[in-house]
Amino acid sequence: MTAENLTSGRIQIAMGLQDVVVDESKICFIDGKLPKLLYYGYNILELAENCSYEEIVHLLLKGKLPTKAELAAISKELIEARGLPADVLDTIRKAPKSSIPMDVLRTAVSQLALTDPKPNDDTPEGRYRKAIRLTALFPEIVAADYRARRGLDAVKNNPRLGHAANFMWLLHGKEAGPFVVKTMDVALVLHAEHSFNASTFTARVIAATLSDMYSAVTGAIGALKGPLHGGANEGVIKTLLEIGDASKVEPWILEKTKDKGFRLMGFGHRVYKALDPRAVVLKKYSEKSGKEAGITKWFEMSVKIEEMMKTREKPLYPNVDFYSASTYYTMGLPPEIFTPIFAVSRVAGWCAHVIEQQSHNRLIRPDCAYTGAMDVPFVPIDKR
Amino acid sequence: MTAENLTSGRIQIAMGLQDVVVDESKICFIDGKLPKLLYYGYNILELAENCSYEEIVHLLLKGKLPTKAELAAISKELIEARGLPADVLDTIRKAPKSSIPMDVLRTAVSQLALTDPKPNDDTPEGRYRKAIRLTALFPEIVAADYRARRGLDAVKNNPRLGHAANFMWLLHGKEAGPFVVKTMDVALVLHAEHSFNASTFTARVIAATLSDMYSAVTGAIGALKGPLHGGANEGVIKTLLEIGDASKVEPWILEKTKDKGFRLMGFGHRVYKALDPRAVVLKKYSEKSGKEAGITKWFEMSVKIEEMMKTREKPLYPNVDFYSASTYYTMGLPPEIFTPIFAVSRVAGWCAHVIEQQSHNRLIRPDCAYTGAMDVPFVPIDKR
Repeated sequence: MTAENLTSGRIQIAMGLQDVVVDESKICFIDGKLPKLLYYGYNILELAENCSYEEIVHLLLKGKLPTKAELAAISKELIEARGLPADVLDTIRKAPKSSIPMDVLRTAVSQLALTDPKPNDDTPEGRYRKAIRLTALFPEIVAADYRARRGLDAVKNNPRLGHAANFMWLLHGKEAGPFVVKTMDVALVLHAEHSFNASTFTARVIAATLSDMYSAVTGAIGALKGPLHGGANEGVIKTLLEIGDASKVEPWILEKTKDKGFRLMGFGHRVYKALDPRAVVLKKYSEKSGKEAGITKWFEMSVKIEEMMKTREKPLYPNVDFYSASTYYTMGLPPEIFTPIFAVSRVAGWCAHVIEQQSHNRLIRPDCAYTGAMDVPFVPIDKR
Repeated sequence: MTAENLTSGRIQIAMGLQDVVVDESKICFIDGKLPKLLYYGYNILELAENCSYEEIVHLLLKGKLPTKAELAAISKELIEARGLPADVLDTIRKAPKSSIPMDVLRTAVSQLALTDPKPNDDTPEGRYRKAIRLTALFPEIVAADYRARRGLDAVKNNPRLGHAANFMWLLHGKEAGPFVVKTMDVALVLHAEHSFNASTFTARVIAATLSDMYSAVTGAIGALKGPLHGGANEGVIKTLLEIGDASKVEPWILEKTKDKGFRLMGFGHRVYKALDPRAVVLKKYSEKSGKEAGITKWFEMSVKIEEMMKTREKPLYPNVDFYSASTYYTMGLPPEIFTPIFAVSRVAGWCAHVIEQQSHNRLIRPDCAYTGAMDVPFVPIDKR
């Protein structure tokens, strides 16, 4: 950006890159007004009801839903890729209890590259292998960290169990019931992909330097951690816990929204201007989870908050993070694991985008409008 | 991006975000045509000749060159922040010799967050403290990894030595001569900052989710690794080694450039359309380094390549990576450490941008043009 352009005021700044189209993509379609969300053309509502996470991994990495034989093959690949390297498990175990689970996940995933004999293999086969390995190992990292914080050893994988069921097995060391497994599977399907969101865009920017998939996914974890992105689901449950019970929702919201700058976690979205279809599905699971667990208060509070927010002068609708919070919490999962669960799912989307980015790559390198000083005369340190 | 927009062909795709202005910034000015590079208004040519890396860290993190007292203060802060946590050193030591140094650096930096009692502290003081800690510890990580690969223990910091001299000390376990230290200091000054390049942009995208500085810097390392970015300096020395000697430059270039798609590492730049001013400085140091070391062939080959590339039909000019390669190599540094050295310098720029981004933050979340299938009817797995 030249000084001339700057001073003549001809620069248009695309703050936050809102509505800037940076590339073509075949992976995910979002219409924020209808609203509608498609993975490779398939409606998320149908995928969430009918598909396992493994089917979605196949869809995202190969562009099509698997046949029975293809599903068996990719499920086998995911199971064979399980098994956390000892050094990575050691890093997780040694992390202080005060450390942040997303920081542990980011470190462990980065370290996976050190135990990959071909971390830079950027053939299509190499990228696919790394995508499967990363997808397979995320639940193990998250569960090992969850257990280490509680003074518990990591649990060995259960090769009889699929991705969602094995994740619950790894967390608790016992098989979860079918409803809990289905709920986790639905949550993993719903969070797997969401176009050029901040973490996926991070992965693409890194991949566009022709760096490797571990680098891209590690960077994406760091972005997902942020409270304006995946970190929001932890924020939602903290809000519910702070409010305490359904009778206090109304006065709490009225008090808080006096401050015009107040942002309620789990509401509003850069893309959705109506109810996020993922929230529609999770709302049902939040309700059912509450009934199953005999703890309905978090769902009831959530509904009350939703009602209040949509009848405001400027209505706001819940996003994916809003009903995932009460769902996970009634499943007995602690808040600090909510964003890591998001990552356990989204890793497949990140990998799909890395593969797509590198299939027609161009370095992503934007410009800025320089507003600083020009040609400041240098003064030697003795005379400053 | 709606289907309507897509089918009507009204979408303009900003591939690679070239010339897209994503934000204002006061940190760095680049005029790629003149060419000119300023850090906070100061010309890089004057900074490189007259300033230590510590002065540049002060400039980048505080927006002004330090007085003598301020330089003493920040130098003390950098020295006091030295000392790699035992767990991080352990991760470096255990990394297989076949692992990639940038992967080790990325993992170790991510792990630093686990030993920070306040990794998410986003007060101005917290961000500054983390910036100083990261800047202080990068040389230790790179040097510990360099030595571990050679079966050598890490060397303790030398509190009498400044940043560049201590880095050389950590690498070799002995004090380097004044010319070598000056050359390293100049290289660190030249690489410290370069506006919205791919790794810095990565750091800003991560920081814009309000994630923390460790996440942003870890992601940036992953981007810098790519051969279209910092990884290029390793590519340059590999080219020089492949060519072998000055007499073979001409036939090698003529042969390679028959392929129109051939890209010579270290030439061309998204921003510079003339000689990168950093290359001007490094060219002098490459020549002097060669004379000091009594190995002039890498410099001579480099000059010959530069001459050939600029007299082509479509002239190309060397970028910062081109003359850093021969400079480092004649200093006795091995190719696999070139990109990590880039990171040892650039960390200060990354931190400055994280601080700037979060001072007036907006989530960075672009859009894409969806070119995939629409509303594909769902078929249950039994019928696929």
